[in-house]
Amino acid sequence: MSQFLRPALSALDPYVPGEQPQDKRYIKLNTNENPYPPAPGVMDAITREAVSQLKLYSDPTIAPLKQAIADCYAIKPENVFVTNGSDEALGFAFLAYADGSHPVTIPDISYGFYKVFAQLFQVPPKVIPLREDFSLPVEKFCSAGSMVVFANPNAPTAIALPLSEVERIVAFNPEHVVLVDEAYVDFGGESALSLIDRYPNLLVVRTFSKSRSLAGARIGYAMGNPALIDDLERVRNSFHPYNINRLSMLAGVEAMKDTAYFEDCCQRIMKTRQETAKALIALGFTLTESSTNFLFAAPPGISGKEYYEQLKERGVLVRYFGTERLSPYVRITIGTDEEMAVLLSKTREILKEANP
Amino acid sequence: MSQFLRPALSALDPYVPGEQPQDKRYIKLNTNENPYPPAPGVMDAITREAVSQLKLYSDPTIAPLKQAIADCYAIKPENVFVTNGSDEALGFAFLAYADGSHPVTIPDISYGFYKVFAQLFQVPPKVIPLREDFSLPVEKFCSAGSMVVFANPNAPTAIALPLSEVERIVAFNPEHVVLVDEAYVDFGGESALSLIDRYPNLLVVRTFSKSRSLAGARIGYAMGNPALIDDLERVRNSFHPYNINRLSMLAGVEAMKDTAYFEDCCQRIMKTRQETAKALIALGFTLTESSTNFLFAAPPGISGKEYYEQLKERGVLVRYFGTERLSPYVRITIGTDEEMAVLLSKTREILKEANP
Repeated sequence: MSQFLRPALSALDPYVPGEQPQDKRYIKLNTNENPYPPAPGVMDAITREAVSQLKLYSDPTIAPLKQAIADCYAIKPENVFVTNGSDEALGFAFLAYADGSHPVTIPDISYGFYKVFAQLFQVPPKVIPLREDFSLPVEKFCSAGSMVVFANPNAPTAIALPLSEVERIVAFNPEHVVLVDEAYVDFGGESALSLIDRYPNLLVVRTFSKSRSLAGARIGYAMGNPALIDDLERVRNSFHPYNINRLSMLAGVEAMKDTAYFEDCCQRIMKTRQETAKALIALGFTLTESSTNFLFAAPPGISGKEYYEQLKERGVLVRYFGTERLSPYVRITIGTDEEMAVLLSKTREILKEANP
Repeated sequence: MSQFLRPALSALDPYVPGEQPQDKRYIKLNTNENPYPPAPGVMDAITREAVSQLKLYSDPTIAPLKQAIADCYAIKPENVFVTNGSDEALGFAFLAYADGSHPVTIPDISYGFYKVFAQLFQVPPKVIPLREDFSLPVEKFCSAGSMVVFANPNAPTAIALPLSEVERIVAFNPEHVVLVDEAYVDFGGESALSLIDRYPNLLVVRTFSKSRSLAGARIGYAMGNPALIDDLERVRNSFHPYNINRLSMLAGVEAMKDTAYFEDCCQRIMKTRQETAKALIALGFTLTESSTNFLFAAPPGISGKEYYEQLKERGVLVRYFGTERLSPYVRITIGTDEEMAVLLSKTREILKEANP
């Protein structure tokens, strides 16, 4: 840290991403990536000719990708905002709607970045604890009196909120933007997208990183009323109008067009999730009901930390969060059936050693 | 604009990027892109296999690209910060060092985004007018009393400041960060990079968009003392740690490694610039001395606006800035010799019609 850094930022507690070892030795079940490759059309679209055209700027209106997203969800391009990963969409929404005198209401346990954005932009957070069973206390979000941000399904708890409950939160906060982060919705959640025409305060944020197998292409998007999208475009055009690079634009269009491939991948992941959950429960694990591409799981007889460390030693990476309420748990991404078989076999070894 | 947008942003005046027509009908000399393709290694690196790996997140430490940049300039990776285009580096620097009570000193005529960032982050700008001949009044920047941001060479004026003058500005502002935006330095400017070890307040910002032929890959970088880089990493890790996508990472490494190709492209552009400038002067144009990949040129007998419009009608796009001091001028990107021949031929037609 230098002497020049603004005092407000010196206490900043940046987000810590999951480990990304570059040596490829691990079975990576720690960052909720999709185990299946992008849709075949993605590989076909990124030709040598397309790469040589990198000399030219990308389309700052992001028109082809907005159109592909709009077509997929039967909405209009004016309902769509596109960003360099969904973190950027979240960041721009904070910039648009929150500041020192416009606070934000968030759950205590959720995607860690909400608190970080609040710190970065000096937004006072109103933090509402999840219930004992990690469910969202909906009534407390209904009288937020500020912008509301929450994930549905939630991470790392994996729990989904029914659409009727999401709608209650949106309907009871007509004076404030309600941002629903649906990064994981394609694995079994109910989307709030059908509500955007009725609620001018609803912003639905999505990502290509999970269900579209494009974590490395960095594409996020938000959907909402055209006036909200216009707000976000003002911020984007005041930050960097060329935020989407040419190759990600091509990749995103193809990934969005191939609905059959997308649905097949999601189905496979949900099937693997069900089987893995069943096996873990049989081993004595405590699990929440997952509507995501990961399991939130507490091993029997050992701490979350010990389980994480023992797995890592055996070549399997999962995500462990050290905070108090989460310490019995780890978050396990759903990989291929083969990867989950290794996880289960290593888990049996670990439990046997721990409870001989 | 919605009813929810923060009042501070409702007066925001976003940056207007140069026209990016998607129909490819124009000779595009309006956004300072490189007319030559990326280094051959870039096309070789982005294989079908690399594209299929987009399912995985990119390396959030950006290690390979930092190393390639460090190797190229004989500095250390700790001196290097990498962003999604240099706009993001500028934005993060504003976030790190400027706010409502920490103003920023900028020239009145320069890259338009400096003013936009000041607006977006509610930073009071101290705007210092360029001299009548568009040169930078160095002495006024020596007692700035705030963070300083300027471009060298400057845009759209194309004029370079000697390194000794840049050093004066850096040396006379030891209490504040001095950010030198060197987007165009490879076309004939003197870089301040050699000073980063001596001045802990100096930040040099560069881009792959111009001299490295990768505008569409969106890669910018900043170089400076490790403490400054650490500040910027804190902001990046609080905004989006995966800001560089996998394919741009590969492209950037290859573009940085191929010094011979890079130097050849820059030489060709400088030669074409010299010939084009000579031809325009012969036609009666007023030009500044360009150290960039563009010319800042005022046509004889007609306004900058008229010249821009007439060129556009004839299929050649250049950039026109409507503000008062710039109204006689247009900014003309240096393309290939063939493209400049068309520009000159259309220009002769236009001048003939205007001054029959």
